[in-house]
Amino acid sequence: MIIAALIVSAGIKIIMKNKLEYTVNFQPVGKRVIAEAGQSLLNTAQDGGIALASICGGVGVCDSCKIRLINGKLTDPTLEEEALFSEIDLHSGFRLACQSYPLSDLTIEIPPESLTAPQRLQIEGRIQNIELDPPVIAVELNIPEPSITDLRADTIRVKDSLVQKVISLPIELSFPVLETMSPLLRTYSWHATLAMRKGLLIAVLPANSPLLGLAIDVGTTKLAAYLCDLMTGAILAKTGAMNPQTAFGEDVISRISYSDIFSNGRKILQTRLIDTLNQVIEQLCLEAGRSNPSINADHIVEAVVVGNTVMHHLFAGLPVHQLGVAPYVPAVSEPLELDAYHIGLKIAHGAKIYIPSNIAGYVGADHVAMLLSTGLSSTNKTTIALDIGTNTEITLSHNNQLLSCSCASGPAFEGAHIQAGMRAAPGAIERVQIIQGELRTQTIDNLAPIGMCGSGILDAIACLLQIGVIDHRGSFTINHPSVRLMDKKREFVIVEHQNSGNGRDITITRQDINEIQLAKGAIRTGIEVLLEYAGLSADMVEHFIIAGAFGTYINIPSAIQIGMFPALPLNRFHQVGNAAGAGARQMLLSLEQRQLAEDIAKRVKYIELSNYPNFSNIFSKSLFL
Amino acid sequence: MIIAALIVSAGIKIIMKNKLEYTVNFQPVGKRVIAEAGQSLLNTAQDGGIALASICGGVGVCDSCKIRLINGKLTDPTLEEEALFSEIDLHSGFRLACQSYPLSDLTIEIPPESLTAPQRLQIEGRIQNIELDPPVIAVELNIPEPSITDLRADTIRVKDSLVQKVISLPIELSFPVLETMSPLLRTYSWHATLAMRKGLLIAVLPANSPLLGLAIDVGTTKLAAYLCDLMTGAILAKTGAMNPQTAFGEDVISRISYSDIFSNGRKILQTRLIDTLNQVIEQLCLEAGRSNPSINADHIVEAVVVGNTVMHHLFAGLPVHQLGVAPYVPAVSEPLELDAYHIGLKIAHGAKIYIPSNIAGYVGADHVAMLLSTGLSSTNKTTIALDIGTNTEITLSHNNQLLSCSCASGPAFEGAHIQAGMRAAPGAIERVQIIQGELRTQTIDNLAPIGMCGSGILDAIACLLQIGVIDHRGSFTINHPSVRLMDKKREFVIVEHQNSGNGRDITITRQDINEIQLAKGAIRTGIEVLLEYAGLSADMVEHFIIAGAFGTYINIPSAIQIGMFPALPLNRFHQVGNAAGAGARQMLLSLEQRQLAEDIAKRVKYIELSNYPNFSNIFSKSLFL
Repeated sequence: MIIAALIVSAGIKIIMKNKLEYTVNFQPVGKRVIAEAGQSLLNTAQDGGIALASICGGVGVCDSCKIRLINGKLTDPTLEEEALFSEIDLHSGFRLACQSYPLSDLTIEIPPESLTAPQRLQIEGRIQNIELDPPVIAVELNIPEPSITDLRADTIRVKDSLVQKVISLPIELSFPVLETMSPLLRTYSWHATLAMRKGLLIAVLPANSPLLGLAIDVGTTKLAAYLCDLMTGAILAKTGAMNPQTAFGEDVISRISYSDIFSNGRKILQTRLIDTLNQVIEQLCLEAGRSNPSINADHIVEAVVVGNTVMHHLFAGLPVHQLGVAPYVPAVSEPLELDAYHIGLKIAHGAKIYIPSNIAGYVGADHVAMLLSTGLSSTNKTTIALDIGTNTEITLSHNNQLLSCSCASGPAFEGAHIQAGMRAAPGAIERVQIIQGELRTQTIDNLAPIGMCGSGILDAIACLLQIGVIDHRGSFTINHPSVRLMDKKREFVIVEHQNSGNGRDITITRQDINEIQLAKGAIRTGIEVLLEYAGLSADMVEHFIIAGAFGTYINIPSAIQIGMFPALPLNRFHQVGNAAGAGARQMLLSLEQRQLAEDIAKRVKYIELSNYPNFSNIFSKSLFL
Repeated sequence: MIIAALIVSAGIKIIMKNKLEYTVNFQPVGKRVIAEAGQSLLNTAQDGGIALASICGGVGVCDSCKIRLINGKLTDPTLEEEALFSEIDLHSGFRLACQSYPLSDLTIEIPPESLTAPQRLQIEGRIQNIELDPPVIAVELNIPEPSITDLRADTIRVKDSLVQKVISLPIELSFPVLETMSPLLRTYSWHATLAMRKGLLIAVLPANSPLLGLAIDVGTTKLAAYLCDLMTGAILAKTGAMNPQTAFGEDVISRISYSDIFSNGRKILQTRLIDTLNQVIEQLCLEAGRSNPSINADHIVEAVVVGNTVMHHLFAGLPVHQLGVAPYVPAVSEPLELDAYHIGLKIAHGAKIYIPSNIAGYVGADHVAMLLSTGLSSTNKTTIALDIGTNTEITLSHNNQLLSCSCASGPAFEGAHIQAGMRAAPGAIERVQIIQGELRTQTIDNLAPIGMCGSGILDAIACLLQIGVIDHRGSFTINHPSVRLMDKKREFVIVEHQNSGNGRDITITRQDINEIQLAKGAIRTGIEVLLEYAGLSADMVEHFIIAGAFGTYINIPSAIQIGMFPALPLNRFHQVGNAAGAGARQMLLSLEQRQLAEDIAKRVKYIELSNYPNFSNIFSKSLFL
């Protein structure tokens, strides 16, 4: 169910009471805020509940509110900005939010360092019990120094020492390692830890160095990264970040379009992602460095990256055009081993990046990782596993058969395209319940509410349905005290402005409900098609596994209430957190797990929903609440 | 015999008759010219016999006299220059020679396109009769298009088609190819020529494309490049160029120093070399394109590069510091297969660059190539082979043993450090003879003489010795009519200014003779050490092979006269042209030849001259003329 058209969300200039207003699209936080003429970007962001830093109080003398203009027109840089930024920075669109005033509708990127409140992290998925079998091992060497009677080249003396030690394989010296090996051996006085990937030398490190690995899950919207000790399997540090590509398009289709339209678009998307991942790596090393100060990024000798097929291709620098047009085939579906230095990932210069198989254009390596960590391939129970995101991948395991499909569920669950929507950050309403006939809300960190994140919206709609304010088509039906007319359209006020954290009403509109109907309808369609294909009815599903950040926080009864999931007994549902990240870690720590992942990818039968005969019929039914 | 000290040729400001004069060191042509105050760089170059282009006649409206300032101070850019150059160009030192006036001693780089007269090419070496066995072959494929019923990834459909065709090896898709394969296959409507290197896919080309290979000899001073048809072995185009690194140091030691002193020095040296090689590749493709217009650099699917160990390391981006300090060991001595895209060589994006083994810090892959093409390893005659250059490598083949050494012969034979010296360009005196008691000169292209190239200097000194103007120590002895005093020092006038092409006398000074003595003494020392080590006398040498451009043009009797070579019968000498280039071509066209080259490198016993017990003694004797 791929909508291959480019949906251009043209910002429409609203002229009201002779007053100019502009729409500012803040990314990667995914929030659209109206800026009144003469209102600075900083004030606009603050009005929108975006925790943009402002250490100096908005007078232009610090750079904590630094943002980047992606699209649209701002007032010219002030003298303060010209003093703070280099010409290159200004040319790249960097500005101070406190010094910039919109002159048109805008897309603005907020760099991670300019946000005060961190986004809520993805929940760490459970990892299977695996035997450690890492792709890279440490070999401690004392290498004889060159002398007038020993004129062997550095490579030869290293090889000879390795052969004496343990390694009997043909030894290969990777080129990026050769670029620095000679001076490093001399710096370490010829006592060194060599990171060996079978016969391939990956890194030359000081004697007795730990070897680290990196597991990354590149989501369309969010990134999750884990720094692990390859020898013990322990997680030394973990963190999340927003995918900076959201500034160039919220979903995969608009990113494909971006890379189609601009000649270097693909390169830009890749570079921005890698830049952010390099910041993430720095952060991880800093955190892990607290307990072991000798740790730095040079110790990261292997990485595993998972993501949907478009993220996978953009990360690896592969063409994506053919993923945006029928029949949506990947450039590559086999597992890849990339050179970190080629991709620009700042880990050991000779390190490899393993990327597992894709299943199809819209079922990617992240889904394979998820199937690995949830053990779906080895269960003999009829099980559905799905990872809800901007794109939702679903697999049904039944009778040793694995059936997969993909649905374009869109970014509504991330709070995008929802009037009061926001990401799962402090102040977001994450839960709505009816208690003694009244709607009660709960926010992240118990702050005054400033918007609603996906789980909150889901709950709210389920509540409105339950109390009969909306019907099964999503239309407002009765005149509830909280339903009001705004611009001739009905909306439901969840929180009055006097109780909110930003002085604005938090409401749900008919349009919001429509967005959620499309999203949940897409997911339900996928589930129904897989069941129909396998000849099963919903109640035959014994386990229903929900992965991903959103999937972990949602209230299952609400999801059943609005018809996103079939009405199974609640004990059949399992919310497993970031299962893709867990799978990536398993593949980081074990070569056997990589083999298993490859086998899974080969076993899966992919069902293309848009070709499925009964698709339209199932989809129309699935839209009802 | 490595002189590891950095010889800084500090330009000394000469103040004479209250008139300022500056020394301008033009590179890569290797010529020092005195500029009088108020004399433009263009006039200075013209005075020095340098064929700097000047289409507009020096009025600043064309950019044909474009040069680049490496060191020193020029007058500020004029308005004309500001109009012609971008800010980046000006910042990088680009200027117009006609608009620039020296304000200090200078080092100036002349880009190849600013020279009117091409340098005399290296003579193409003879290639052995070899059987074609190229590393890359062409496979013509018709690949089924993706469709709704065939959703295989592009890589899978290519692999499946290859397997059906011929290839039974495990097929590997190199990453740089994947970056462009998907759009290319669609552009070519799924009919393509695949360049396969065993199981590795190197390039996707239009159907029925020729596959080309590139053989490059990177000399310290000169580059030679050959474009070959991999299927027929034919040379499609060949060209020479100056090594742009000469602007950063004339010999290998000063280039090592440059990369030691400046943090990104090694990168700069590599980048400049690669930039020039990319221009050379363009030129080769243009030439070959005359007979086959479909040819372009994407068809070059393999390259072989040879060079001395320092050139090899700098080309490949390897550390060179340890080559400049005792015991002078290479970072790498094994054969390398580099990725062209990693090095930045603009040939097929997936192409590999093969670099054969080094023998030692100062006996490089170029010497291995030379031993291969001269058949030295398979002869049963006692043979000496040497390649004269800034560094001269010598091998003695005797009784199935190969003994090699290296001597720092310096750049004097290239015309550098010789007052009237110049490279072998039109107008250079290349031959001096005594005819009826008088010195007669012959110039390249029979132009009015403007300087002397290496072979001419050698001849001239041999003549001076023969007529008794100088003695065996190199001192002027008798008062010949052509010997005069200049600044209290004697010099011999070869051509009076009224007969020269630039209105200046062409002379030989005591200092010039000294430079040649050091150079030829170094070479003779190497020869004598190898003979002594093998227990041979010079007359037991049955073949004496001289490779390289300079070695091809020299007059053997002159070289014997001044004691550079032993006095063997002339028919034992063989001048074979660019034998390193010929060896590189052999390795380009045949995998068997690569194996042979590896075997040669392993067989060679390297003799480090500076450690040889009798070295000083032999060297002192070798200095005599």
